[in-house]
Amino acid sequence: MTGSTPRGDVSDWWRTAIIEMEPGVIKFRGRPIEELIGTVSFPQMIWLMLRGDLPSQGQAHLLEAALVAAVDHGPQAPSIAAARMAVTCGVGINNAMASGVNMLGDVHGGAGEQAVVLYRDIAARQEAGASFEKAVQQGLDAHHDRRGKYVPGFGHRYHKPVDPRAPRLLVLVDEAAREGEVTGAYAAIGRAIQAELKTRKGTALAMNIDGATAVIFAELGFEPPLARGIFCLARSVGILAHAWEQMNQGGRNKGPTPPEYRWTYEGPE
Amino acid sequence: MTGSTPRGDVSDWWRTAIIEMEPGVIKFRGRPIEELIGTVSFPQMIWLMLRGDLPSQGQAHLLEAALVAAVDHGPQAPSIAAARMAVTCGVGINNAMASGVNMLGDVHGGAGEQAVVLYRDIAARQEAGASFEKAVQQGLDAHHDRRGKYVPGFGHRYHKPVDPRAPRLLVLVDEAAREGEVTGAYAAIGRAIQAELKTRKGTALAMNIDGATAVIFAELGFEPPLARGIFCLARSVGILAHAWEQMNQGGRNKGPTPPEYRWTYEGPE
Amino acid sequence: MTGSTPRGDVSDWWRTAIIEMEPGVIKFRGRPIEELIGTVSFPQMIWLMLRGDLPSQGQAHLLEAALVAAVDHGPQAPSIAAARMAVTCGVGINNAMASGVNMLGDVHGGAGEQAVVLYRDIAARQEAGASFEKAVQQGLDAHHDRRGKYVPGFGHRYHKPVDPRAPRLLVLVDEAAREGEVTGAYAAIGRAIQAELKTRKGTALAMNIDGATAVIFAELGFEPPLARGIFCLARSVGILAHAWEQMNQGGRNKGPTPPEYRWTYEGPE
Amino acid sequence: MTGSTPRGDVSDWWRTAIIEMEPGVIKFRGRPIEELIGTVSFPQMIWLMLRGDLPSQGQAHLLEAALVAAVDHGPQAPSIAAARMAVTCGVGINNAMASGVNMLGDVHGGAGEQAVVLYRDIAARQEAGASFEKAVQQGLDAHHDRRGKYVPGFGHRYHKPVDPRAPRLLVLVDEAAREGEVTGAYAAIGRAIQAELKTRKGTALAMNIDGATAVIFAELGFEPPLARGIFCLARSVGILAHAWEQMNQGGRNKGPTPPEYRWTYEGPE
Repeated sequence: MTGSTPRGDVSDWWRTAIIEMEPGVIKFRGRPIEELIGTVSFPQMIWLMLRGDLPSQGQAHLLEAALVAAVDHGPQAPSIAAARMAVTCGVGINNAMASGVNMLGDVHGGAGEQAVVLYRDIAARQEAGASFEKAVQQGLDAHHDRRGKYVPGFGHRYHKPVDPRAPRLLVLVDEAAREGEVTGAYAAIGRAIQAELKTRKGTALAMNIDGATAVIFAELGFEPPLARGIFCLARSVGILAHAWEQMNQGGRNKGPTPPEYRWTYEGPE
Repeated sequence: MTGSTPRGDVSDWWRTAIIEMEPGVIKFRGRPIEELIGTVSFPQMIWLMLRGDLPSQGQAHLLEAALVAAVDHGPQAPSIAAARMAVTCGVGINNAMASGVNMLGDVHGGAGEQAVVLYRDIAARQEAGASFEKAVQQGLDAHHDRRGKYVPGFGHRYHKPVDPRAPRLLVLVDEAAREGEVTGAYAAIGRAIQAELKTRKGTALAMNIDGATAVIFAELGFEPPLARGIFCLARSVGILAHAWEQMNQGGRNKGPTPPEYRWTYEGPE
Repeated sequence: MTGSTPRGDVSDWWRTAIIEMEPGVIKFRGRPIEELIGTVSFPQMIWLMLRGDLPSQGQAHLLEAALVAAVDHGPQAPSIAAARMAVTCGVGINNAMASGVNMLGDVHGGAGEQAVVLYRDIAARQEAGASFEKAVQQGLDAHHDRRGKYVPGFGHRYHKPVDPRAPRLLVLVDEAAREGEVTGAYAAIGRAIQAELKTRKGTALAMNIDGATAVIFAELGFEPPLARGIFCLARSVGILAHAWEQMNQGGRNKGPTPPEYRWTYEGPE
Repeated sequence: MTGSTPRGDVSDWWRTAIIEMEPGVIKFRGRPIEELIGTVSFPQMIWLMLRGDLPSQGQAHLLEAALVAAVDHGPQAPSIAAARMAVTCGVGINNAMASGVNMLGDVHGGAGEQAVVLYRDIAARQEAGASFEKAVQQGLDAHHDRRGKYVPGFGHRYHKPVDPRAPRLLVLVDEAAREGEVTGAYAAIGRAIQAELKTRKGTALAMNIDGATAVIFAELGFEPPLARGIFCLARSVGILAHAWEQMNQGGRNKGPTPPEYRWTYEGPE
């Protein structure tokens, strides 16, 4: 009994357009795996799995850049810290990785997704007839109403004045736009948000990695939740690298701070 | 206060050779991130993060093939099933991904790691003076003593007679060996195990994807735990693709089987 | 260096009113652990940890009933299924438990929390001057506007006509109300919602376990997120029991359905 | 179609002696849930789920003491730290709890399990005819051969000279032994290990909480993996309490140390 020959309602319980199997046969999105191995790049395979078709070289190049850019932000990031701590607790390396990925919630991993939503909302306002300036302003206002004061993808508490990843990613988007691989519309939106924020706050709030990768994801037509999903794929690399390094360093039950620094007790005597 | 300017014992509590940061500066393994983005491929970046240097094109090509080959094995795999179920339970997409990766334990995700250990043990016996035949036989015997009857990387309960991914991966290893990118020594060991198992069992127990990717990891010099770690990176792609597909399908609290099929109760009346 | 003697800003980074430690001393909410062990019940300890004080016997009795009622709903529940699958994948028993708890999201584990929010909203409308009938009707309407068609805590896709846990829990609430341990106000609200839903739908949509435990949590003054948190504590018992049973049954890489039932492929040829 | 009326091989795929269901009926270990709610304590329910029968009051009292004793060890414990960090990353409270439990691996959560194995091995040696002294010595030697230098359940890097939980738990075991609820054999073994370690090392290595709860679990006849599982249930209480406290404190993306303390970079320039 195979995936392509379902057996009544039980085999119908799980349905997929991603993978088809028979003994000796594995096809992804209709393509035999042996024709993909050694032929498509890993980013192309990621695209195929998520989208159903293969990207152009230029599209794959942009996706690859977004993946490379986001692998790691150091042992202070909760995702990385959790994986390093987990390794010292005696769990499998996959469990340590899962502990890291489990941290990439709305606040830690969701800025890219939220930025794609913001960009798309601005684009939709333009399409609906608003001027570019109005679309940006109204999009920002609507975002604040919906989600509060933080503008996802702009500003960085550490990398001041500029997150070094963002300008480099935008250069690649501009190149791809010149080559007709993408329209560049979302790069323009991203830059307009940056300018508008400077006007509103009187100080620069530069595009950060989430803002720049969101430009790429929006240019490439990824749905917002996939911005978070792809970020998880990228960050998993750093999570693994740090878990492995910690495994080699050793340590048992390593807490967040050195043992002699504990915590402030603020409860009853 | 930056990573490169530690502040006493607190900043010394977490130590890393992977990433260095100052405001506006991020370097991985000594290389500025803006020089990596758009320049190195995602597999090269994975290698850099895990190993500290950049691979040759041929090495990266083999690693990429191993990553592409292992992305998914369908909704029956516990890793994929967990992620699809999780999505219907109302958690974030990163949490669904973590639930999938958390399944990749010794049995579900560990065969590649165990196969690298087996291959290396055989290679060590050769280096210590044993003939190739003896090394293979003694290595297999030692494996059985250590871990029981299963030989990791050989045989497949579904893909009979052959896992379509393994022969294609071996073709790529052979090509890389001809080009001097790898020695081919571990491909020979893998094939010799396959032959020895046929002799011992009287029936073919073909190399599967874990056996073939383990050949690649061993040829490329990855430590055994990284075989599992890299498998987790690859499988995360399928986990994400299925989580996303399930999100689009909808469903609430989707259990493993259709609701009218429950379970066999075998306890007291 | 102890919890009660912080060392500058580092020890101030983590702050807690829950636990105080010095070598040889552990106090929870100001009470030495050795005075709690053997003296307070486990539900009393749960209350102390979450609330900062000890409950009366009657309050603890109600909390205990809610804990006992929610331990398990069988291998079809995603939380239980995930833990059973995880065990067959070769991870630690704690990792299998985490995989189960990670499933208890908004849809699978959040109904109790959402029901407390609904009950409190109705109570607030009463306090603000609305009649009981109006408060119930307006509370329900507001819930639908906020969260859509499902009313958390009422109706059950399997236990028709009645979830056997709910009436028993309400009996205990009524007893506690007679004894003055709780007011019974939220039991009245829960029952009024049930009556109103019957009027609106023309068919009974009986209170289920989430609705009944939410009555208890609201009567006891727990904040809504703790309704989910305490449910996680209760369900962890069933998750552990099933993980352990599966460990004893054996099995390797157990997918959701028997291997010969696979999935329906609905993608391109 | 119900749990007790399986439908062919599909319903036979998941088998359990724990729970039986029909619409309107839920039985655990053969007992209707409505007869358990309000009647059995939460520790009794835990025992019923894990063991299949109900404990005596004295047995339940000991289990309850072990549960109360292990709820928390402060924000420095990786399990607690992970949950607190997770909350600031924007995940659900159940995901934060799962992140905590996922940390309770061999090193962080496994000492109790390992201690039960050690105690049982010593008891088996006695039963096989060894003198008590010899059994203790040989059991310890065998443990060192099997698992290295650490003796699980003895010594504490922080609570010197004595972990305040252990003596209190032993008092309860002694009381239960006098009342005939348990034999006290494992309390004797635990104390003999403590004495032997003092002889061997020349300095006291007092029984800690893991050693003392392991005495209880062994006295009560729990299998070793359940020592870890029950510890996970207990620690989940502290994990939840700290997650909830952190949720009330707020904070976004809270890393392990204050932001201005980063890490030591020890890689290439």
